[in-house]
Amino acid sequence: MSKIIHGGDVYSHPGVIDFSSNMNPFGTPESVIRAAAEALTSISSYPDPLCRELVTAIADSEGSALSQIICGNGAAELLFTYAAALKPRRALLPAPAFAEYEQAMMSVNCHIDFYHLRVEDGFNFRQDLTDRLDPDLDLVVLCNPNNPTGLLIDPDLLTEVLRLCRLNNIRLLVDECFLDFCVEKGRSLVPYLDQYPNLFVLKAFTKKYAMAGLRLGYGLCGDTAFLEKMHGYVQPWNVSLPAQKAGIAALQETSYLERTMEYLAKEREWLKKELQACGLTVYDGSADYLFFKGPAGLKESVLERKILIRDCSNYRGLVEGYYRVAIRLHDENVKLIEALRNFHPEQVQ
Amino acid sequence: MSKIIHGGDVYSHPGVIDFSSNMNPFGTPESVIRAAAEALTSISSYPDPLCRELVTAIADSEGSALSQIICGNGAAELLFTYAAALKPRRALLPAPAFAEYEQAMMSVNCHIDFYHLRVEDGFNFRQDLTDRLDPDLDLVVLCNPNNPTGLLIDPDLLTEVLRLCRLNNIRLLVDECFLDFCVEKGRSLVPYLDQYPNLFVLKAFTKKYAMAGLRLGYGLCGDTAFLEKMHGYVQPWNVSLPAQKAGIAALQETSYLERTMEYLAKEREWLKKELQACGLTVYDGSADYLFFKGPAGLKESVLERKILIRDCSNYRGLVEGYYRVAIRLHDENVKLIEALRNFHPEQVQ
Repeated sequence: MSKIIHGGDVYSHPGVIDFSSNMNPFGTPESVIRAAAEALTSISSYPDPLCRELVTAIADSEGSALSQIICGNGAAELLFTYAAALKPRRALLPAPAFAEYEQAMMSVNCHIDFYHLRVEDGFNFRQDLTDRLDPDLDLVVLCNPNNPTGLLIDPDLLTEVLRLCRLNNIRLLVDECFLDFCVEKGRSLVPYLDQYPNLFVLKAFTKKYAMAGLRLGYGLCGDTAFLEKMHGYVQPWNVSLPAQKAGIAALQETSYLERTMEYLAKEREWLKKELQACGLTVYDGSADYLFFKGPAGLKESVLERKILIRDCSNYRGLVEGYYRVAIRLHDENVKLIEALRNFHPEQVQ
Repeated sequence: MSKIIHGGDVYSHPGVIDFSSNMNPFGTPESVIRAAAEALTSISSYPDPLCRELVTAIADSEGSALSQIICGNGAAELLFTYAAALKPRRALLPAPAFAEYEQAMMSVNCHIDFYHLRVEDGFNFRQDLTDRLDPDLDLVVLCNPNNPTGLLIDPDLLTEVLRLCRLNNIRLLVDECFLDFCVEKGRSLVPYLDQYPNLFVLKAFTKKYAMAGLRLGYGLCGDTAFLEKMHGYVQPWNVSLPAQKAGIAALQETSYLERTMEYLAKEREWLKKELQACGLTVYDGSADYLFFKGPAGLKESVLERKILIRDCSNYRGLVEGYYRVAIRLHDENVKLIEALRNFHPEQVQ
């Protein structure tokens, strides 16, 4: 096992416009950068291992109890800590999905079953997911909306899965890192934490506040004894001081998020149509990114115009020709469309 | 298992002078804060998962190959990643020592043998350590100089342990996080990496450059396949962008470190004498902290004067009355001595 190639590798491609990672198009809020910068003057001290001030701010924001929250060095770290603490013997993961679910499960030698999202179903989760909730499973992982497809899981299906998991003594981890970008609200499982101790909801500051470089994520779980156990599988100072302060500042941003949602709702529809007009098969995603099928060689072609898109062919269950693009600022999206329009297969070796 | 109480908890004790964590007394270099602050403007991008620029700078500084270096979210994270990748069945750890060795081994259900440093030996590592290198061990962990004692391991003993470990197919992890503070140089095992693939040397920016709040550490190992394996047990973006940039800036600091060493060499001797003059039994530590035995209740007493020292009674193998203090700036050290002189047992409940 070694590091998997993901989106967002702007270091191999300096000077590109990065459509390959899915950040808030408005960039990091000034208040967040300011709070992190102020914290830099205190970095000779360790960060608070208990993230007390940050946890209080998250609890206020989520309407959950302090004891139901665990912070991490990005949501990705929490996946590994969760796996280490749970040590599931058998887990059901969707495919295609974020590669770290699989990597985290492999790190504890967990047997993995895959629930394959099929092209003939438009990559949607189907009712037959409930047939896969075998009591022999220890864990089901879902991502809502899914990454890279951007497709939301039907809310009735989701709560049925949650109920059946509890019935069969299966833990359910739902990654909601992109859910706040979706116009359709009310699909979060956070309100179910109290009744469903088998539920773990994963959330991140990374995308919502465009602070991927600083690393901050959190998890919510009603099984507070399990969260305590998780602390035994990670160093005490995993969340840096600047990240803690940045998170507190981020949670005070409201108009920034309102502007983001308004913008995304409009721009998403525009970009869908433009991508379709390029002859691409665009999926009806709800997040801050769009997933589509097109010809092979598209990534290399647009890279010549300093546009970096996510080639999704290395996702489990996908083949050549699948791509994902972030919804960026309108001027940048126009450049993306121009670069895509310019594609001629013969350019590519 | 839950979070262990360590030194450096300034969040429970606002406004104290913190002698309980061992940072460079000159504080974070300006250049480090500046580099991290500049990086904050780019945090909408993920950090480089391969830490390419930072790894190059570390390789230059250590005189080691790029492939022999792995970076972490502080040295503490690397302990957990190392344990997860190695999955040792049986390990020998010193006691007393940094609590995270034990926590990291417990996270992979490793059976732990302890090598007890004894008060009658002045807490020194003894020749009989070699008798404990049972071929049934998978791993030996050492800390040089040890924490909390500050005592260096005899260099001949150390290289003999390294040789015997290789002979018996035992991995040796040596934590050198405080070694750069020691006036006596040449005891680092970094020059042995090529010949001893069983060796892993752990180092940190945390203490050397007083940047504990930002989290940055690294490991060196000649077994590059094992380092590749370690990458499978941690998220790809574990080292934040500000930490990477701060590390690169830190490695360019030379006069700051020279001043630190000069100052520590002198101040360490002064503080030892002053602590002895307070009637305390001071161990002959070589690091940027000192370890001593005194009466119970000392921590609480000096806390009344806003002085936070490390009560070491919760270290495995230690009892009430052991303490550790960082060597801080002279004015602050004077305040520590004044507070210690003021101690009257009857004050304490």
